Amino acid sequence: MSTIAFIGLGNMGGPMAANLVGAGHTVRVFDLNPAAVSQLTEQGAIGCKTSCGAVAGAEVVITMLPAGKHVRSLYLGDDGFINKVGSGTLLIDCSTIDSASAVAVAEAAAAQGFEFVDAPVSGGTAGAAGGTLTFICGGTEAGFGAAKPILEGMGANIFHAGGHGAGQVAKICNNMLLSILMIGTSEALQLGRDHGLDAAVLSEIMKVSSGGNWTLEKYNPCPGVMPATPASNDYQGGFMVDLMAKDLSLAMMAAGDSHSSTPLGALATAMYRQHARQGNGSLDFSSIFNQFQK
Amino acid sequence: MSTIAFIGLGNMGGPMAANLVGAGHTVRVFDLNPAAVSQLTEQGAIGCKTSCGAVAGAEVVITMLPAGKHVRSLYLGDDGFINKVGSGTLLIDCSTIDSASAVAVAEAAAAQGFEFVDAPVSGGTAGAAGGTLTFICGGTEAGFGAAKPILEGMGANIFHAGGHGAGQVAKICNNMLLSILMIGTSEALQLGRDHGLDAAVLSEIMKVSSGGNWTLEKYNPCPGVMPATPASNDYQGGFMVDLMAKDLSLAMMAAGDSHSSTPLGALATAMYRQHARQGNGSLDFSSIFNQFQK
Amino acid sequence: MSTIAFIGLGNMGGPMAANLVGAGHTVRVFDLNPAAVSQLTEQGAIGCKTSCGAVAGAEVVITMLPAGKHVRSLYLGDDGFINKVGSGTLLIDCSTIDSASAVAVAEAAAAQGFEFVDAPVSGGTAGAAGGTLTFICGGTEAGFGAAKPILEGMGANIFHAGGHGAGQVAKICNNMLLSILMIGTSEALQLGRDHGLDAAVLSEIMKVSSGGNWTLEKYNPCPGVMPATPASNDYQGGFMVDLMAKDLSLAMMAAGDSHSSTPLGALATAMYRQHARQGNGSLDFSSIFNQFQK
Amino acid sequence: MSTIAFIGLGNMGGPMAANLVGAGHTVRVFDLNPAAVSQLTEQGAIGCKTSCGAVAGAEVVITMLPAGKHVRSLYLGDDGFINKVGSGTLLIDCSTIDSASAVAVAEAAAAQGFEFVDAPVSGGTAGAAGGTLTFICGGTEAGFGAAKPILEGMGANIFHAGGHGAGQVAKICNNMLLSILMIGTSEALQLGRDHGLDAAVLSEIMKVSSGGNWTLEKYNPCPGVMPATPASNDYQGGFMVDLMAKDLSLAMMAAGDSHSSTPLGALATAMYRQHARQGNGSLDFSSIFNQFQK
Repeated sequence: MSTIAFIGLGNMGGPMAANLVGAGHTVRVFDLNPAAVSQLTEQGAIGCKTSCGAVAGAEVVITMLPAGKHVRSLYLGDDGFINKVGSGTLLIDCSTIDSASAVAVAEAAAAQGFEFVDAPVSGGTAGAAGGTLTFICGGTEAGFGAAKPILEGMGANIFHAGGHGAGQVAKICNNMLLSILMIGTSEALQLGRDHGLDAAVLSEIMKVSSGGNWTLEKYNPCPGVMPATPASNDYQGGFMVDLMAKDLSLAMMAAGDSHSSTPLGALATAMYRQHARQGNGSLDFSSIFNQFQK
Repeated sequence: MSTIAFIGLGNMGGPMAANLVGAGHTVRVFDLNPAAVSQLTEQGAIGCKTSCGAVAGAEVVITMLPAGKHVRSLYLGDDGFINKVGSGTLLIDCSTIDSASAVAVAEAAAAQGFEFVDAPVSGGTAGAAGGTLTFICGGTEAGFGAAKPILEGMGANIFHAGGHGAGQVAKICNNMLLSILMIGTSEALQLGRDHGLDAAVLSEIMKVSSGGNWTLEKYNPCPGVMPATPASNDYQGGFMVDLMAKDLSLAMMAAGDSHSSTPLGALATAMYRQHARQGNGSLDFSSIFNQFQK
Repeated sequence: MSTIAFIGLGNMGGPMAANLVGAGHTVRVFDLNPAAVSQLTEQGAIGCKTSCGAVAGAEVVITMLPAGKHVRSLYLGDDGFINKVGSGTLLIDCSTIDSASAVAVAEAAAAQGFEFVDAPVSGGTAGAAGGTLTFICGGTEAGFGAAKPILEGMGANIFHAGGHGAGQVAKICNNMLLSILMIGTSEALQLGRDHGLDAAVLSEIMKVSSGGNWTLEKYNPCPGVMPATPASNDYQGGFMVDLMAKDLSLAMMAAGDSHSSTPLGALATAMYRQHARQGNGSLDFSSIFNQFQK
Repeated sequence: MSTIAFIGLGNMGGPMAANLVGAGHTVRVFDLNPAAVSQLTEQGAIGCKTSCGAVAGAEVVITMLPAGKHVRSLYLGDDGFINKVGSGTLLIDCSTIDSASAVAVAEAAAAQGFEFVDAPVSGGTAGAAGGTLTFICGGTEAGFGAAKPILEGMGANIFHAGGHGAGQVAKICNNMLLSILMIGTSEALQLGRDHGLDAAVLSEIMKVSSGGNWTLEKYNPCPGVMPATPASNDYQGGFMVDLMAKDLSLAMMAAGDSHSSTPLGALATAMYRQHARQGNGSLDFSSIFNQFQK
């Protein structure tokens, strides 16, 4: 068991840190919100007053933050973790951020002799609470090997996507593709409905044919086809439109950096932004189905 | 066992008719190409000199033709099958055509007391030869019930999508979605490669994540990721770009009829037409991947 | 001056026929709606009880109808104009229809020795009333030469786009491009506004730069930038979303016939259909601007 | 007349600086490439060995650089111009860069009491040589008022788009719209050609109709329609695909910052990147027309 500093105790970070406590680790926690720290303290973590206090003496540092600027700010600079933590400390960032920031921090860490692993997650708050998250990691073989047993305390699938930043890239590739699956499936289902087909029947046919995809398996966007989905619950819960729009913006930033052509991804980005602007930002992302109905 | 007239003995129709012979039916065949008739005759079918000759005395008529105009021409009008075949004859059209034509023929048939089933297939020439095709049917319950045992002589999955024309609609919905899956997956894989990721590793991750879809399971578009795919064989074989472009044109025609909004499907249509115009019409449809590479 | 049969007296056809009366022609009119016939009779036209009655003895036949099926129905078949009118009668169809129908009627007319000119209009009801319409014609040189002086009684600009059907093709090419100008201008203006720019200032700059286009000159989609536009009048009046969607569907049908790749046109079609489905069909087409605002 | 420091003497900056010399200003020049400095010295400028040397004693500083990082690097930081130039020096950046960088530098400058004007240009190398550039400026009224007479020595149209960064925003809005006009016009022309229309005739019709836009007026993408365009010269010269792709990436970055939905702009970006990847980066941007031909 390790001494782990965990920084960022929001909807995702909070339950993740709690699972590390439950796995037997000593977990030192910090968040700008004192209530979040108190909640974790009650669950067995050691509350700290500053992020630097949290990382003091830790063998592993885990961060779960909103954006690349927060990650760069905590790790880099004179007061950054890279200049504060003890030699041999393993650095793991579970935030979903731009890959350029992930690479920048990883390279600065490597220059000081640290292993840094970018390990963005998928699985949402339910996965965080249940310890069933998927982690998609970028880093060296050694870094990944060291991070994996720690991450297994919080998740069910731990992938090694490649070198530094590859975790971020793989995650936004996946989520860009997911947005395309969701919109494409919505279009196809509504086209069928417009010609009198039953969405459930059409879904069954496509699911076992060459149109089969994750949204038809797990997350049908048409209300009433699958009982437990957000679509059958007024698009409440699930993965918010605003979060999908954020991931798509990261994908577009990455595509800009590499001059990649992503026509469907670019169009999906425009559509999710439009959907968010029209007041649907806090609905589940399968609510894009509503854009196609009469 | 039934007496079946089979009209249209091309790359698909030929092996389908042969499978009906093999299943024990009496099969009367016709094609404009005498060589195709001869080939089936050698396989045990009864060759006929005209389509009207083929349908004379048949309990079941099956057609496998290139486009809606051919289907309308054979079934409708004074010399059409509807005015020629005996009462109680079951009419099955396995062509992939516009749903408006399918509905028009079905309604004319119903007015004369015939059951007409639109039953387009998927599974390609390999499925036709192996008797493993998927049939997606539109028609009445009675029509579908009568057609199903016949179709089972040629296929493995027989779906009832809904009323007249629903088979055609479901097929083009599925294939429109398939084109979106293929392009979206290609974009995502190339975006990852442009950032240094290995396409095989990224494919594995997305396949078991929320980006999972049929193309990652069965038909990876990146050369070398899956050994037996067209992508690993210079995009030879498989499902031709020209055929995907044809199905997408049918989907766009259907969307026009119902004033449906299909942004990703419309863009996929433009991209497959562009790809075909640039000389790739006879390559497998996964070759769209090439449009994204450097 | 000529004796002209005018069939189709709707919002466009009515004032067009009245202008022909005003130009001194003898105008024999018919419409399925008797009130429309009465109105024209009061304006000096000769009301007829059937379309065949209207064309009897006419030197010129002009039709203004909703869709290709109406045009084919009136001109073709045993009772069609082509079999009813006297030799040398000039046939002009001002409807906006699919080019395939226009070509089919023109070829049937030519086979009987008639000149047929497809002459769709632009300019809206204001242009129809004021006699300032634009006519975009397809047909032979002789047909165009004969039609031009007649059309000049109803319009200000008479173009010869090419052979049979070319008028329809040119019109839908223009309107497809117009839809792209309108959406592209809306996106650009809103992107500027989202960064704090004034839409009027940005419009002025782009209008005289390489972004200059008809919508910035005449029809700014942002409310308040130009006082007399539909945008400054709650998007009332002008060219309805439903009509733009109809023209885009004709463009998509033409693109399907020729296997043409029109990515921006296809996306514009999806967007106008979506906009219409959301209840905006009777607003002016510049209201697409609303889809981009917060 | 003023003493002006001019940094960045490439294909655009070189002739711009020469025009300032010709207008009677004292011009102190620097570029990393000594040959570029020598060339300007021969034209009457004062060559300097460093950028700091060039700005010493200057009343006006003008920069013309490739990207935001170069601009930030020269102006900001301990050795940046903002800490080196004398009080009252007017700072003008003519580079086309991301608006966020322009705003960051402008705010830092304002904090030190300097007027900073972002003044990206359009008009290409011909405009730079001829002194007919268009400048689109962002900054205070005072800053714009001071910059305008200087810029008039290099250009014909000087616009004030708004506050800091507004010049950059207006330019990329315009160029995003231009890319849409170019692709949309190409699609429409090719759709007409696919139906047998003559591109020149169709261009004439659309130019004076509601499809009218700058590309039809000045820059027809179809070879042979306009004699002096890049399209009629194997797409040589003009505005390179790579530069359009760069401006579109800036537009997409701006849209990401403001969560703006730009579906046509996003698709145009994907298409220009694809076109560049296929080896067309150094052709004129109207060569996108080739993507639609057979």
